[in-house]
Amino acid sequence: MMPSRHVARILAAALASIVVAASAFAADDPLPSWNEGASKQAIVDFVAAVTQEGGKDYVAPEKRIATFDNDGTLWVEHPIYTQLVFALDRLKQLAPQHPEWKSKEPFKAALEGDMKTLGKFGVKGLLEIVAVTHAGMSTEDFERIVSAWIAISKHPRFDRLYTDLAYKPMLEVIDYLQANGFKTFIVSGGGIEFMRPWTERVYKIPPQNVTGSSIKTEYRVTGGKPELFRLGEIAFIDDKAGKPVGINAHIGQRPIAAFGNSDGDAQMLQWTMAGDGRRLAMLVFHDDPVREYAYGPAAGLPDTDFGKFPQTLMDEANSSGWHVISMKDDWATIFPPK
Amino acid sequence: MMPSRHVARILAAALASIVVAASAFAADDPLPSWNEGASKQAIVDFVAAVTQEGGKDYVAPEKRIATFDNDGTLWVEHPIYTQLVFALDRLKQLAPQHPEWKSKEPFKAALEGDMKTLGKFGVKGLLEIVAVTHAGMSTEDFERIVSAWIAISKHPRFDRLYTDLAYKPMLEVIDYLQANGFKTFIVSGGGIEFMRPWTERVYKIPPQNVTGSSIKTEYRVTGGKPELFRLGEIAFIDDKAGKPVGINAHIGQRPIAAFGNSDGDAQMLQWTMAGDGRRLAMLVFHDDPVREYAYGPAAGLPDTDFGKFPQTLMDEANSSGWHVISMKDDWATIFPPK
Repeated sequence: MMPSRHVARILAAALASIVVAASAFAADDPLPSWNEGASKQAIVDFVAAVTQEGGKDYVAPEKRIATFDNDGTLWVEHPIYTQLVFALDRLKQLAPQHPEWKSKEPFKAALEGDMKTLGKFGVKGLLEIVAVTHAGMSTEDFERIVSAWIAISKHPRFDRLYTDLAYKPMLEVIDYLQANGFKTFIVSGGGIEFMRPWTERVYKIPPQNVTGSSIKTEYRVTGGKPELFRLGEIAFIDDKAGKPVGINAHIGQRPIAAFGNSDGDAQMLQWTMAGDGRRLAMLVFHDDPVREYAYGPAAGLPDTDFGKFPQTLMDEANSSGWHVISMKDDWATIFPPK
Repeated sequence: MMPSRHVARILAAALASIVVAASAFAADDPLPSWNEGASKQAIVDFVAAVTQEGGKDYVAPEKRIATFDNDGTLWVEHPIYTQLVFALDRLKQLAPQHPEWKSKEPFKAALEGDMKTLGKFGVKGLLEIVAVTHAGMSTEDFERIVSAWIAISKHPRFDRLYTDLAYKPMLEVIDYLQANGFKTFIVSGGGIEFMRPWTERVYKIPPQNVTGSSIKTEYRVTGGKPELFRLGEIAFIDDKAGKPVGINAHIGQRPIAAFGNSDGDAQMLQWTMAGDGRRLAMLVFHDDPVREYAYGPAAGLPDTDFGKFPQTLMDEANSSGWHVISMKDDWATIFPPK
């Protein structure tokens, strides 16, 4: 019989090696915020396949393009789009100079906080508000306004900065893809210049890899000082069929992986999957009312004006081999720790 | 007195060490095709200044953005723009289906090879031809047509592929900047999708870092197959005041270095130089009729319709601290060896 001290020592050593092995395993896991399951496996398998030199699915690093929708895919989009909160804050500031807004939609609904009516005007209505609240100044002034706002503005329910509500599992996917030679791009229906001031800090995606909807700018030299002046006119709506168009204009290559969460992303996923070779298309499905939100008629959840996920999208995902990520089941953690 | 064999050995050893030292020196020179002089020095000093950590001019790598015009700055643009040669070749192919072109400008001049008249229609006229010769097909079909054309088409004077007529000194600048953490972009008045199929191979600049003029595309699903269809309508002209607009739309950051060669680049250089901190603006001046071409009223050279360099541009360069690169004096070599 071994002295009990000796047994204790052996047990301690065994335990230590298990702990070491477990941490090594955890350290090796590029997606620790994902529960084991089909979604996580699809990502890991895809990356393994396209990076294996000599393998049948190998893709050269310069062709490893991945695109991400922003609202609802990388960060919270409920109860309303974050950029809309920003626009409403600005609208209230500017309202005294625009009495006509009191009776003119979509401004009326916006000022009255009637999100239901506002939602009915869709991306186009949103961009009308964007045009009046985001224009009439230089690009540099706008960047300063956005940076100041985003630095302090908090989500009403979670009481955290909007930029702290980027989904941790998606941040891990971006890191994982970048570590495997991918170029990662944001392709958002939201405004390009609303995102660029903070995407590098929050997502590690630099300004030049961000595309989105935009308003026109004009080059002016005022008092010897060149500036780009933001005009109240929409240049491009980067949503639905606009997403492949925007991807082509901005990136000039077809993605091999695309991530979205709504019917505004369907065409991006179609376009991605229609290319040759191995591809990955994923949709984040908001089915977690406890930790985040649940919306979309698919799976019997309520409809929404921000981030629509109709049954037809679920059907298309199923018939097209797109992976639907269940926020409730696939994500062990949703937000980065406080 | 030393035996002569011993002297010979010492001399040989000395010579060898000089050769070694000289090759080491040459290997250290990032710009071997540049003659010593103010232009080369300006580039080397600028890169040293913005990359010296702790120095007063230090710029973080993610802000090291350099933009290059293409035609006349990175490759030959005379006697006419290369893309115009491509367009004329296509125009002749398509002419039998468009009898109206025989009497309608700028098509008439183009088909008759009347470059002088064609030149008078400027970038806009050129883009009208581009629209009819570059549209009515998918982006993938267009890429195939461009790739096939550029693989075999040769410059009439030099009898070399157009892509072999990239300026070696400028290729060295791109390499040098990239080696020093710069992101390098093409910002061209030429068509974005005419350049993207070959810029990575020729300049080491990938498709996503190429911006230029563009026509509209439309997302279509035909027989279940998604495609982007090229419409005969101009989306954006990336020339003159359009260049800062295009830079902002595409890159979202102001460059710290910009290279051009004509009045189409003036606003890009103004915009670049108007930012804070150390900046570099350079214009390639075509003053070498023997090895390349000479054009531009500045310095009494003949005017041109392709790559205008008026006296006002020379005056602006001089008063603004922009460096004018003399092709004749600053470049030891112009083209890569055959």
